[in-house]
Amino acid sequence: MGVVETAGHGKMLFNDGLAMISERDEFIYHDMITHVPLFVHPSPKQVLVIGGGDGGTAREVLRHPDVELCTMVEIDKMVVDACKEHIPVTSKVFSNPKLNLKIEDAIKYVAETDKTFDVILVDSTDPIGPAKPLFGPAFYKNISRVLNPNGIVVSQGESPFFEKEMQCSLMGVLNQTFPVVSIYNFTNLTYPGGLWSFTFASKGLHPLDDFNEERVEKMGLDFKYYNKEIHRGAFALPQFMRNNLKDYIKG
Amino acid sequence: MGVVETAGHGKMLFNDGLAMISERDEFIYHDMITHVPLFVHPSPKQVLVIGGGDGGTAREVLRHPDVELCTMVEIDKMVVDACKEHIPVTSKVFSNPKLNLKIEDAIKYVAETDKTFDVILVDSTDPIGPAKPLFGPAFYKNISRVLNPNGIVVSQGESPFFEKEMQCSLMGVLNQTFPVVSIYNFTNLTYPGGLWSFTFASKGLHPLDDFNEERVEKMGLDFKYYNKEIHRGAFALPQFMRNNLKDYIKG
Repeated sequence: MGVVETAGHGKMLFNDGLAMISERDEFIYHDMITHVPLFVHPSPKQVLVIGGGDGGTAREVLRHPDVELCTMVEIDKMVVDACKEHIPVTSKVFSNPKLNLKIEDAIKYVAETDKTFDVILVDSTDPIGPAKPLFGPAFYKNISRVLNPNGIVVSQGESPFFEKEMQCSLMGVLNQTFPVVSIYNFTNLTYPGGLWSFTFASKGLHPLDDFNEERVEKMGLDFKYYNKEIHRGAFALPQFMRNNLKDYIKG
Repeated sequence: MGVVETAGHGKMLFNDGLAMISERDEFIYHDMITHVPLFVHPSPKQVLVIGGGDGGTAREVLRHPDVELCTMVEIDKMVVDACKEHIPVTSKVFSNPKLNLKIEDAIKYVAETDKTFDVILVDSTDPIGPAKPLFGPAFYKNISRVLNPNGIVVSQGESPFFEKEMQCSLMGVLNQTFPVVSIYNFTNLTYPGGLWSFTFASKGLHPLDDFNEERVEKMGLDFKYYNKEIHRGAFALPQFMRNNLKDYIKG
């Protein structure tokens, strides 16, 4: 793990040899993992972030005034500490009193906790090493267990160009547990190929039919990437991707 | 100029040191420059391609059965010849009898020709060297001259991340001549940053209000990237891009 000062991207955090975030475009990933589900859920009060050690996802969650507490379960204290030292643009959230940071294994946490959540954001690395179980069925059974009846889970969904099989596998796992399963895209500078995905699964809420556009206007937050057109446009899949995933999208 | 066999992208064509096309993802660029305007224009019969020496744009134009003739004006015979030899996936169009290939300077061509067109696609390189006038006002005055009353011009629109000023400049030039000006995005593997744009300008047709979705269904072409949701989604701009360009979008 390391932080590098780059010419074009500002500071970048690397983990297991892969680029995690760059200061220049972190706002894109963090806008899109957060605001899509938080503007579909009618009243998100309890939010759980799994992973997300740089703090960017929790930062965006806590811009929503409805959110009472953002619980964040990160396994790697070194990521949190490195970002606290080097990447204030994301780690400033760690001083927010509405953030409850727990340094522990999220697999164990979702298996054991009594707490329940309205929205869960799985802001994980790729499914190699310790993050691998975060892409499996046992984990998502527990995610469902700790999700409230109106709950939504959004997960880092890999690259439609380079990780087609991984996307199918994750969508298949979500299909075993959730009645609504979908996937949406964003474009960033840091991850290979530019185009990247998040999966969306819920106990009933639909990412477009239940999207409350007026709440976006009313809240009046000045996002750098997200807006209501981007929310809808993100679910428009390129035809090659739709062909790959059509059997996994439902609800 | 050169053609290189790569590990991940198939064959790639380089020009002036910049990547022009790769076999792996050329379908994205060519779908998006072509099918967006050709499904907005109600009956595109005469199409002009400026540049596009690899043939991919003309190939997509000639999949539309309404098109009677695709005129292509490319200044660089070497690009055409290199693609004929090495990149058949795009250059196969050069044997199509509905293609009228002219090796000459497009600046001169649009200033002098008596022909007129329904759709013009400016499939140019970046505004350096010989392509620079293709981004200027004199060229677009002549584009307007050779466009029919219902005409549309779509142009390679650079990167919203890296070429913000260039995008503003091109949109400003289009604003001098056309009552409808817009911009749309696609994501590809080859160009820096992934996210890339095309500008859309017309004498009256609107890229969304005049988009005929039923024609897409009826024509039943199996595109790899384009579909009717992607058409609409492509005009949903990230907020930072809308902030940059809001004064240039009209109609």
